[in-house]
Amino acid sequence: MTTRKPILASATALLALLALTGSVARGQAPDPLPSWAEGPAKAAIVRFVQHVTQPGGAKYVRPEERIATFDQDGTLWSEQPVAQLEFVTYRIKQLAPQHPEWKNQQPYKALLEGDNSFLVNDLTHNHGKALMELVLATHTGMSIEDFNRSVREFLHASRHPRYNKKYTETIYQPMLELLRYLRANGFQTYICSGGGVDFMRVFAEETYGIVPEHVIGSFAMNTFKQVNGKWTIIKDKTNLFINDGLTKPVGIDQQIGRIPIFVAGNIRTGGDIGQLTYSQTHRLPNFQLLINHDDKLREFAYSEKDNASLKAAKKGSWQVVSMKKDWKTIFPFGEKAD
Amino acid sequence: MTTRKPILASATALLALLALTGSVARGQAPDPLPSWAEGPAKAAIVRFVQHVTQPGGAKYVRPEERIATFDQDGTLWSEQPVAQLEFVTYRIKQLAPQHPEWKNQQPYKALLEGDNSFLVNDLTHNHGKALMELVLATHTGMSIEDFNRSVREFLHASRHPRYNKKYTETIYQPMLELLRYLRANGFQTYICSGGGVDFMRVFAEETYGIVPEHVIGSFAMNTFKQVNGKWTIIKDKTNLFINDGLTKPVGIDQQIGRIPIFVAGNIRTGGDIGQLTYSQTHRLPNFQLLINHDDKLREFAYSEKDNASLKAAKKGSWQVVSMKKDWKTIFPFGEKAD
Repeated sequence: MTTRKPILASATALLALLALTGSVARGQAPDPLPSWAEGPAKAAIVRFVQHVTQPGGAKYVRPEERIATFDQDGTLWSEQPVAQLEFVTYRIKQLAPQHPEWKNQQPYKALLEGDNSFLVNDLTHNHGKALMELVLATHTGMSIEDFNRSVREFLHASRHPRYNKKYTETIYQPMLELLRYLRANGFQTYICSGGGVDFMRVFAEETYGIVPEHVIGSFAMNTFKQVNGKWTIIKDKTNLFINDGLTKPVGIDQQIGRIPIFVAGNIRTGGDIGQLTYSQTHRLPNFQLLINHDDKLREFAYSEKDNASLKAAKKGSWQVVSMKKDWKTIFPFGEKAD
Repeated sequence: MTTRKPILASATALLALLALTGSVARGQAPDPLPSWAEGPAKAAIVRFVQHVTQPGGAKYVRPEERIATFDQDGTLWSEQPVAQLEFVTYRIKQLAPQHPEWKNQQPYKALLEGDNSFLVNDLTHNHGKALMELVLATHTGMSIEDFNRSVREFLHASRHPRYNKKYTETIYQPMLELLRYLRANGFQTYICSGGGVDFMRVFAEETYGIVPEHVIGSFAMNTFKQVNGKWTIIKDKTNLFINDGLTKPVGIDQQIGRIPIFVAGNIRTGGDIGQLTYSQTHRLPNFQLLINHDDKLREFAYSEKDNASLKAAKKGSWQVVSMKKDWKTIFPFGEKAD
């Protein structure tokens, strides 16, 4: 009886080996992008990667220059709602007992009472200054270790309101495959997002395989100082830089010092037009991917005021991805319609 | 006659192969640090690298965490004089014909007339504001391509006043070997310097094998805009950040998001105490190297006001390197005494 399991295991291993040998013998590599439907988007990606990795080819790019940048919200994970703003709400509510004055003080009062009109009005008429105050209250004034702990706790405790999954699970399966495919072909994959760099670094490695030094986002220059005799990095708001729109190329240049040859973004605010345009200034072959959120059934359908991103895509011959048509699967867990 | 050279070449290759095979057969790896004298510094470096790369060992560190940061001026190349300040002088003189007003305008007048007292006075009594004006005049307001071109031209045209070599040649041979040794052991090697990040990125890859994204330095946030219909990065002075002293850990955290386990700096201004201290806050095994400029004959002998770096080294048990005793060779070209 005790030998049974090993025998079964060996048989399974043998079958797996035979299957593998068979596919190698037939010269078929496994499809690196199984969640992508056959179509122009998938074909264009594969063609580009084959071109830049073909030694001696006219479009060959040496591995050091194979830099790829990816927006995050709406490109790597769902941005309805924006997780970092959910974190702000979560933290303000968590910190409220230590700040009884917030009950009568805006913008805290509005957030605690769920008064969305106040914040919408702030965004529309006051450049989002109240929102920025809430962001700073939850993102500065603590050690980086304490901040990271608060983000991990939020990610562990919170669920996406529609899918009832963690935010680190409402990520796009086709994009995970694309990240892996690019890395397997010698690319360095970076996030370039309007989100906070420290916020994203907490989960980017585990979630996307993107190491902390490959995360580019909004940031401020922190402070290194002694607190209770211990040297540490304290999160600060000096030289605040918002990495969005036309400043994304600036963030990329500051951190990498090279122009990316592959950029992926999505429609909603025009926030990726900058980095997509930037990659087209490269002397080397380059590729632009723009995700269109047109899948109301499986994810969300939304467009952009004035359609600036889609217009820029047409003008620049960027590859537009239809989530509805080009993606066989949306999420790793399989999606459900409402 | 025509066959002679090939035969000789083959014989040489054969001898080289035999020599190699012999050393492999005897189990001797070639010394990775041949310019380092046998002694406590070399032994400590080799011991640390062996510990963190020993799988299963108590001090093992996975490759992703093997981050090493190196100061540049006085740590990787000679800082007498500081090359970037020589660049400022070179550029101001080069641009002077287009700025006839500079003849009567400080601080340009002083620089063009070689009036060092003005600049020394500025540094001593005016926080170096005049020097900063000269730096900004030569480092901002142009496209990154034009700036890079001006740096390359300077590096090609200029010579170190004592050695009559290019600045990219007055680099320390033992440190080149150390960089290579660390990379061969899975480390990522970064520069972390007070120098301008864009200035250093021009030559860091060719000179040290350090890629642009691994250069951390002083920076400002540039601007991405259209100039004559062409999108480009224009060097700007927004959010200027000086990466020195206690701000070096902040620069490292901003760009890498990890604490380095290996840091090398040097004495002169105490500018590396910050990053050396930072690496000691790591939960993982860590190593600190401090170079003491005590070799008047082959390089320069200088100390630090109040000896802060050497005092910190003693307190923190950092490994101090004596250029005189620990380095068999200083420069790749071999050094000459005055």
